[in-house]
Amino acid sequence: MDIATVLGIGLAIGLVFMGIVVDFSTFSLKLGNMAFFVDFPSVLIVIGGSTAAVLTSYPLNKVMRLGKVIGSAFKQTPEELIETLTLIIDVSKIARKNILAIEDALPSIDNLFLRNGLRLVVDRVDRELIIDIMHSEMRYLDLRREEDVGILKTYASLSPAFGMMGTLIGLILMLQNLSDPSAIGPAMAVAIITTLYGTFMANIFFTPWANKLSNKKESDKILREMIRDGVLYIEKGERPDFIEADLMNYLPPDLRTMYEEMKFESAKGDS
Amino acid sequence: MDIATVLGIGLAIGLVFMGIVVDFSTFSLKLGNMAFFVDFPSVLIVIGGSTAAVLTSYPLNKVMRLGKVIGSAFKQTPEELIETLTLIIDVSKIARKNILAIEDALPSIDNLFLRNGLRLVVDRVDRELIIDIMHSEMRYLDLRREEDVGILKTYASLSPAFGMMGTLIGLILMLQNLSDPSAIGPAMAVAIITTLYGTFMANIFFTPWANKLSNKKESDKILREMIRDGVLYIEKGERPDFIEADLMNYLPPDLRTMYEEMKFESAKGDS
Amino acid sequence: MDIATVLGIGLAIGLVFMGIVVDFSTFSLKLGNMAFFVDFPSVLIVIGGSTAAVLTSYPLNKVMRLGKVIGSAFKQTPEELIETLTLIIDVSKIARKNILAIEDALPSIDNLFLRNGLRLVVDRVDRELIIDIMHSEMRYLDLRREEDVGILKTYASLSPAFGMMGTLIGLILMLQNLSDPSAIGPAMAVAIITTLYGTFMANIFFTPWANKLSNKKESDKILREMIRDGVLYIEKGERPDFIEADLMNYLPPDLRTMYEEMKFESAKGDS
Amino acid sequence: MDIATVLGIGLAIGLVFMGIVVDFSTFSLKLGNMAFFVDFPSVLIVIGGSTAAVLTSYPLNKVMRLGKVIGSAFKQTPEELIETLTLIIDVSKIARKNILAIEDALPSIDNLFLRNGLRLVVDRVDRELIIDIMHSEMRYLDLRREEDVGILKTYASLSPAFGMMGTLIGLILMLQNLSDPSAIGPAMAVAIITTLYGTFMANIFFTPWANKLSNKKESDKILREMIRDGVLYIEKGERPDFIEADLMNYLPPDLRTMYEEMKFESAKGDS
Amino acid sequence: MDIATVLGIGLAIGLVFMGIVVDFSTFSLKLGNMAFFVDFPSVLIVIGGSTAAVLTSYPLNKVMRLGKVIGSAFKQTPEELIETLTLIIDVSKIARKNILAIEDALPSIDNLFLRNGLRLVVDRVDRELIIDIMHSEMRYLDLRREEDVGILKTYASLSPAFGMMGTLIGLILMLQNLSDPSAIGPAMAVAIITTLYGTFMANIFFTPWANKLSNKKESDKILREMIRDGVLYIEKGERPDFIEADLMNYLPPDLRTMYEEMKFESAKGDS
Repeated sequence: MDIATVLGIGLAIGLVFMGIVVDFSTFSLKLGNMAFFVDFPSVLIVIGGSTAAVLTSYPLNKVMRLGKVIGSAFKQTPEELIETLTLIIDVSKIARKNILAIEDALPSIDNLFLRNGLRLVVDRVDRELIIDIMHSEMRYLDLRREEDVGILKTYASLSPAFGMMGTLIGLILMLQNLSDPSAIGPAMAVAIITTLYGTFMANIFFTPWANKLSNKKESDKILREMIRDGVLYIEKGERPDFIEADLMNYLPPDLRTMYEEMKFESAKGDS
Repeated sequence: MDIATVLGIGLAIGLVFMGIVVDFSTFSLKLGNMAFFVDFPSVLIVIGGSTAAVLTSYPLNKVMRLGKVIGSAFKQTPEELIETLTLIIDVSKIARKNILAIEDALPSIDNLFLRNGLRLVVDRVDRELIIDIMHSEMRYLDLRREEDVGILKTYASLSPAFGMMGTLIGLILMLQNLSDPSAIGPAMAVAIITTLYGTFMANIFFTPWANKLSNKKESDKILREMIRDGVLYIEKGERPDFIEADLMNYLPPDLRTMYEEMKFESAKGDS
Repeated sequence: MDIATVLGIGLAIGLVFMGIVVDFSTFSLKLGNMAFFVDFPSVLIVIGGSTAAVLTSYPLNKVMRLGKVIGSAFKQTPEELIETLTLIIDVSKIARKNILAIEDALPSIDNLFLRNGLRLVVDRVDRELIIDIMHSEMRYLDLRREEDVGILKTYASLSPAFGMMGTLIGLILMLQNLSDPSAIGPAMAVAIITTLYGTFMANIFFTPWANKLSNKKESDKILREMIRDGVLYIEKGERPDFIEADLMNYLPPDLRTMYEEMKFESAKGDS
Repeated sequence: MDIATVLGIGLAIGLVFMGIVVDFSTFSLKLGNMAFFVDFPSVLIVIGGSTAAVLTSYPLNKVMRLGKVIGSAFKQTPEELIETLTLIIDVSKIARKNILAIEDALPSIDNLFLRNGLRLVVDRVDRELIIDIMHSEMRYLDLRREEDVGILKTYASLSPAFGMMGTLIGLILMLQNLSDPSAIGPAMAVAIITTLYGTFMANIFFTPWANKLSNKKESDKILREMIRDGVLYIEKGERPDFIEADLMNYLPPDLRTMYEEMKFESAKGDS
Repeated sequence: MDIATVLGIGLAIGLVFMGIVVDFSTFSLKLGNMAFFVDFPSVLIVIGGSTAAVLTSYPLNKVMRLGKVIGSAFKQTPEELIETLTLIIDVSKIARKNILAIEDALPSIDNLFLRNGLRLVVDRVDRELIIDIMHSEMRYLDLRREEDVGILKTYASLSPAFGMMGTLIGLILMLQNLSDPSAIGPAMAVAIITTLYGTFMANIFFTPWANKLSNKKESDKILREMIRDGVLYIEKGERPDFIEADLMNYLPPDLRTMYEEMKFESAKGDS
């Protein structure tokens, strides 16, 4: 779990909350101010409206899986690359002795792409077909991630638009009812709230989430390229130390150092 | 029919309607408010104006076919890939026995691209020419789709611009007639309505439709690549099980699973 | 002449005019409103200013030819592809008998690119040099079209900017002379007119024209690729029916059908 | 000197000036209005501020050479291509007799890229190295031009931002001092001036200059490609008429006609 | 240290400060104005809020290293290319005599990429593996730089958004409390301050820093390509004068002249 993400969202919400309820001239709390910023129809127009427009743009099942996708983006750790590399080396050692023995290791492998790839090796599928299947899977996983980022970006650009629509509706209603001057201020305040909601949703949720997912897409790509190479080396019966030397090029320099230290530690432990 | 799309548009319109007529402070309906939001000249300027500008940008026949195109985008189902794959396999089985026998199957094939391709095979057209003709057709279908998306994007960017033009006209008329203070509010309200219409059209209709069509363009491309490969395999007299194994790479992982289950079901039924 | 284009511009201007002079609450004409929307210095600032900025950006001769270019974009018809294909086939038939005989046909060929290409064939220029010359010409025609589109896009982005500049000037003048309250409304109205002009120019003229020209650029490219292939086949003395079969791949599906029907008609007429 | 450029800038400034001092309702000059539009701190914030931000973005020496670069962009003439082609042909004639004799011609060649290239030929540098050196120089000249365009675009996007900052500062100061109602109008006018300055700088100077330079970049690229080919032909001792025929493909069609007429004229003069 | 950068930031801040405290109509200092522009909650919302959104978008460790990265971008000098070239030539001279002798020179080499590359040469690592390792390192350094630029651009686009959010909050609070007319001006002033902060942060810090870093990315790429070639030449035992002639192509023309003058000077000094 990347603590910074949760912290980031919490901090942003907290700061906006503080801007609303803290009166810095007297350093007093004015919790009553909160009431000015809660407006149910504005929530409906901004969140409901942009969700509706997203549903028009994308198939239902793709929008529905979004929640799970965002969750997974927050769980990723940079160590995944190292753990997967270690796992591939371990499997390659088993495979050198008996390639069919890796079947027993399959259930314990969490990464679906790696597990499916090794399953093909165990099933003695033709090397060319393994390459085809893995590439087709990489292509679809990449496309799907791109769609997920696209949905979030659509949300990020539509929520301020619906916010503005709500404000225009509020303004028109207010301008048609100018008889009571004391009501103008609050009416206009309520009209503006929708714009605030739209900006809030776009900049605190959708844009950062789209960024996060887009970053994850890039690192997942590198992870999958490493897995593909690893599976193909195992299929070929390549030597574990050669596989390790080559796959280490997929690690960024800091992880490479970390990996080497880890190995050194474990070697010491072994001896 | 993708239910989410219709639902999306309906929901968006409903929420805007709710924002207009529901008074959430008293939880009462104020249907009279609707009258403030209906302004015929504004409709003409926004919809008529942006349609006029689109007509200047694109040939008449391309704009005219748009209605049909949008309709088709909403009818697409992800199952189309599976159905087409099944169809290709069925045809390939017929072709193995007698390639000319597939002529009888042609009328029942809905997908024009597949039917035209198979017609070329039946007509014993030279393989290289089949490739040329199919690629040229793929290129044009893709270009046409891109044009359709372009027209919708032009609409989406021009309708807010015409909305703003209407508001500027309204503002100028109002500013030239400030003598009656009580008329200022409603006059300004009417001026702003055009901007609301422009934003409404762009964000509830044109932008989501452009997104939808753009997504369909991508999935249609994959479908046509699969059809092209299938037709060429049939022309070559390739074995149905080989064709199936190769074309299945065009299915995204979830559809591949669905296809395998379907096959398993039907195999059980057969035995 | 593409009727939709002229219609589009006329319709857009008509709708804006309607928005100005028709009072829909009483369904009466208020032609006097027109006077509020005519402001000579605003015209100078928006049209003059953006033209000046375009002149700074592009060489004089390129800006001067723009009028002719826009005109030509409106004259294009999709049938041009068919007519040119028919012409190439006719010429190829003459060339099969006597390649020098096509010289007599040259003066009647309107398309300059085709005429120049055939001239090179008649002059027995080396095949490689014909390819070089035609490609260099294609490259320059394409570059020039891109420049034309660029000039119109520059206009489209600069005219609203000059509109805003005019409004700022008007606002500053008004704010410095607030002594007469009854003059504020009209002064502000006049200030806003420049923004209206800028938006009007950009969205009714420049942006649609740029779109139109950009679309024509794409279809001209296809036309020229077809001509190039045709000229090279003629130079090689290729058979007319082969040339036809190959060049028909440049026609979009609907034109291909139209061409085949035309041929069928004329074949019936011949027999 | 491209007269249109100077004319363009002059015209734009003149029109803005006219918008300020001419009162079109009475057709009288109000030169006193000028005073409302001169505000020294606004000049400092917009020009100083955007220059400061540009200095933070780019190394000092690159910003400093900008003045010279803009000047050079305005001096370019389309005839440069023809003159350079003629020069290359002349040099190639000398080189055919005695390749070392071109050394005498070097000092009279203004184009540095051509002179340096010919210097390498005279120095009998290895052909491969000449190609390497010329390509590396082309790459750097292109990169540098791109940087120049980038600096101007940075200016064009930052000056309106600093204009807005100045307006916000002015507005805040005004809102804190609302005690004297008669001062509000002028104070707000002054606040708005900074936005006008920013828009003025961006749309009359920086954006058109960036366009100009970007266009020059493209034509310089073509010029340098022609020079490179010419130098390599000279190094090889190629025949002048062959060099001419090939390099003429770098001329756009209108310049090619102009060049052929010139040659025809001079041939007549020679005979 | 690039003096222009520090100067640029200082100048921009100074000019904004001047716009606030200098009254140009009376040429007097009004330091009291500063108080109108300091608002603690606005600082929290703009800086805190955009930092929070950046933390949601990027992993914590990448955001944390940003300070160091910005610092390094300001320390770069164009002379780095020359110094590195000289260093490579010096090392290549040592290597010609005894390749293992360069180990003694390693600790004095500051550039990590060069040092690591030479370490591989000393360790007699296989040439192919050196290429793989260096390319993988180049790729990661480039990706990391791109991420750094991306973070700064995210900051630059989010800080105005948070500025606007703060202003909307301030406006809503003000509109709900219109009872005291004299408080409206200052309340609105405070509301607007957040927008000023957001614009200030984006245009004086984040955008110029992103530009700076993006420029450095490009020049670092060239530097690393030169180092890679140099290391591979040294591994191969190439002659120093050949290495110099080839690597000099990486120098832009002005640095090449500077380098040649330097060499000439030092040659004079040697003799």
